[in-house]
Amino acid sequence: MTDLDDATALIATMGEAARDAAVELAQATPQQKQTALTTAADALRRRQAEILAANHKDMQFGRDKGLADSMLDRLRLDDSRLRGIEDGLRAVAAQRDPVGEVVTEWDRPNGLHIQRVRTPIGVIGVIYESRPNVTADAGALALKSGNAVILRGGSESLHSSQAIHACMVEGLRRAGLPEAAIQLVPTRDRAAVTAMLQAQGLIDVIIPRGGKGLVGLVQQEARVPVFAHLEGICHIYVDRDADPEKARRVVLNAKTRRTGICGAAECLLIDRQYYTQHGPALVEALLQAGVEVRAEGDLARIPGTVLAEPDDFGREFLDMIIAAKLVDGVDGAIAHIRRHGSQHTESILTENDATVRRFFAGLDSAILMHNASTQFADGGEFGMGAEIGIATGKLHARGPVGAEQLTSFKYLVTGDGAVRV
Amino acid sequence: MTDLDDATALIATMGEAARDAAVELAQATPQQKQTALTTAADALRRRQAEILAANHKDMQFGRDKGLADSMLDRLRLDDSRLRGIEDGLRAVAAQRDPVGEVVTEWDRPNGLHIQRVRTPIGVIGVIYESRPNVTADAGALALKSGNAVILRGGSESLHSSQAIHACMVEGLRRAGLPEAAIQLVPTRDRAAVTAMLQAQGLIDVIIPRGGKGLVGLVQQEARVPVFAHLEGICHIYVDRDADPEKARRVVLNAKTRRTGICGAAECLLIDRQYYTQHGPALVEALLQAGVEVRAEGDLARIPGTVLAEPDDFGREFLDMIIAAKLVDGVDGAIAHIRRHGSQHTESILTENDATVRRFFAGLDSAILMHNASTQFADGGEFGMGAEIGIATGKLHARGPVGAEQLTSFKYLVTGDGAVRV
Repeated sequence: MTDLDDATALIATMGEAARDAAVELAQATPQQKQTALTTAADALRRRQAEILAANHKDMQFGRDKGLADSMLDRLRLDDSRLRGIEDGLRAVAAQRDPVGEVVTEWDRPNGLHIQRVRTPIGVIGVIYESRPNVTADAGALALKSGNAVILRGGSESLHSSQAIHACMVEGLRRAGLPEAAIQLVPTRDRAAVTAMLQAQGLIDVIIPRGGKGLVGLVQQEARVPVFAHLEGICHIYVDRDADPEKARRVVLNAKTRRTGICGAAECLLIDRQYYTQHGPALVEALLQAGVEVRAEGDLARIPGTVLAEPDDFGREFLDMIIAAKLVDGVDGAIAHIRRHGSQHTESILTENDATVRRFFAGLDSAILMHNASTQFADGGEFGMGAEIGIATGKLHARGPVGAEQLTSFKYLVTGDGAVRV
Repeated sequence: MTDLDDATALIATMGEAARDAAVELAQATPQQKQTALTTAADALRRRQAEILAANHKDMQFGRDKGLADSMLDRLRLDDSRLRGIEDGLRAVAAQRDPVGEVVTEWDRPNGLHIQRVRTPIGVIGVIYESRPNVTADAGALALKSGNAVILRGGSESLHSSQAIHACMVEGLRRAGLPEAAIQLVPTRDRAAVTAMLQAQGLIDVIIPRGGKGLVGLVQQEARVPVFAHLEGICHIYVDRDADPEKARRVVLNAKTRRTGICGAAECLLIDRQYYTQHGPALVEALLQAGVEVRAEGDLARIPGTVLAEPDDFGREFLDMIIAAKLVDGVDGAIAHIRRHGSQHTESILTENDATVRRFFAGLDSAILMHNASTQFADGGEFGMGAEIGIATGKLHARGPVGAEQLTSFKYLVTGDGAVRV
């Protein structure tokens, strides 16, 4: 008996329970799901001491294991972070329920009335790293969309996740929903991840939440469909017809507001004509804000810049660093982005509508922006209430993945004794 | 050098060409695509003799190979079938172009205007059996939706498919579109199928068109996502509140109109109360129509029925055979279908709206019908113009797969210098 056999058996048991729960959940009322979520939020507040004690254990374990400070920071819970998790649960509870929504309907000459109605997908697997809040966030979004979920958090956060999970289960119980609707893998064994990735027929889709290492592993090994993005190599292009003040403001925000998120700009493309006319002010503003500008060609002559290496283009820095180069107009920008982008988010700065149309038509990233910061690539900013991540694939979910993106659909067809000729 | 190495290299070359073509296609105008399709239709008519000669070769090859008559019939082309293919091309040409359509749009308090716009998926792979018409049908739908396509037809139909493919290429050329937009795998080597199924990063989705053997193989081996249904085990349930005359008409149509299609009913469930009240008339009507009724329990006492074996339930007969049993109301029907169905299409016959709602909520097949024949499970009948098949998966495409289901989307976000706080 290997670890993988054990893990496969465990995931099979959890998966079967999840499938059964999914059948019930698909028929749960919006009110039941709301009750579950607000009860979980109440429990989170009531059990605060318990959760913080569990987190204390995890932090101790993490320190003993020699985790980096940044990892420990992600793992850490405190009053304010717990309040954030609680607020998140209440926000998802208050959102519109997508299940049962009639997406579109039409009549046919054959006498049929056809409705396309949203349904849950079924069972979702979420694999994440050390942030214990994902337990609540992902659990809540899956529940809202009527899906059962199997959560596999980072081994460092096991106690914290279990404490938060207990609150979610309290909510389910109160609402009369099956406890197996939100399950947490109870082991630190890494084989559980592999077992989840191979659980065809039990898990319908896997969503990895974490760094490139985790996502890459999941995308490579998964036999189950995956909603994810490997990298957010977001580009911002300043066109010859850009307004210099808007450009300065947006470029600074896109790079510096938060550097560690997937929507942060990693590459600045400046039209050659814009540069001839407006000079190095844009790059200087970045330098002044403390950004390391890795520049190519003419831009590299601007004092304070660093000469870019070829692999700085198409690189996700997640830091106060940006690659920068001159391009020949929007077509040059499109060609560069097609070659080096990750189909996440790109933005164009211009006052020329024809150029916008060209940029929007010539690229196929999940999100294309005009005169707006790439940092808006976020489910909350899109009005989705909450997101479980951002997907760059082309099938099913794309861009911010909220409750609606976690649904499928079915056709409901009504006749009056209609037969096909 | 193995066959698979050769095939992998071939599919890699075709896949690269398809990816390049897909970039151009995504920006093709609706007019260009229309021109390509109507030119192909014209060419099909002009080259009729050539195509029939190619088909003659295939038929000869098929006969020598000892193909069954039913296979030979699928392979055979004649004037009327060619006219059907031509009409299909013109119908797809006349359809609404889905690419660029704004699916939904909204404004955000942060000042952003967000549009969700349809885009092509990219590169589609179609693997089919002996019907040469799929070359035109699948090529046309892929083109309409802006996708490049790699077609791999059955080895028996190679000459016919090549002759039809030449017409499609003539259309592409006339419209100024890349010839690699519609490619036909030029070899009978079966390894090409395996290579396509493994072509991650080159082919975005595979659509198998054919029998259970082909679809099962594709679903099992594919590393690329698949839109398909393995079986159409469609159920028809006659409720206690059914109108007997509607029930008779619809049940007969669902089973007998055409028995070889995936939307044909394979199992009749009759509510016990309905049976007590209305007796064996429904089953007798089926028997009279020449249907073999494999019945269970009380139904098996009706003269002319055959005793059902357990595996007759959940079986796709594709013939003048139906399984039949009594169930206890709609909940009994739901339980049976959940256990034995294939999530394709099920229909309920009743005049009771509450019972309809229960049936619609309790099942999660791609298509659920009320007082309508399961034989309506078809893209044309749904108003989609044409379909490439019916999918029973939960992700992306579900039910009839027409041009619209072959699209993905992107978000276009417009601000006026918007930065995120």
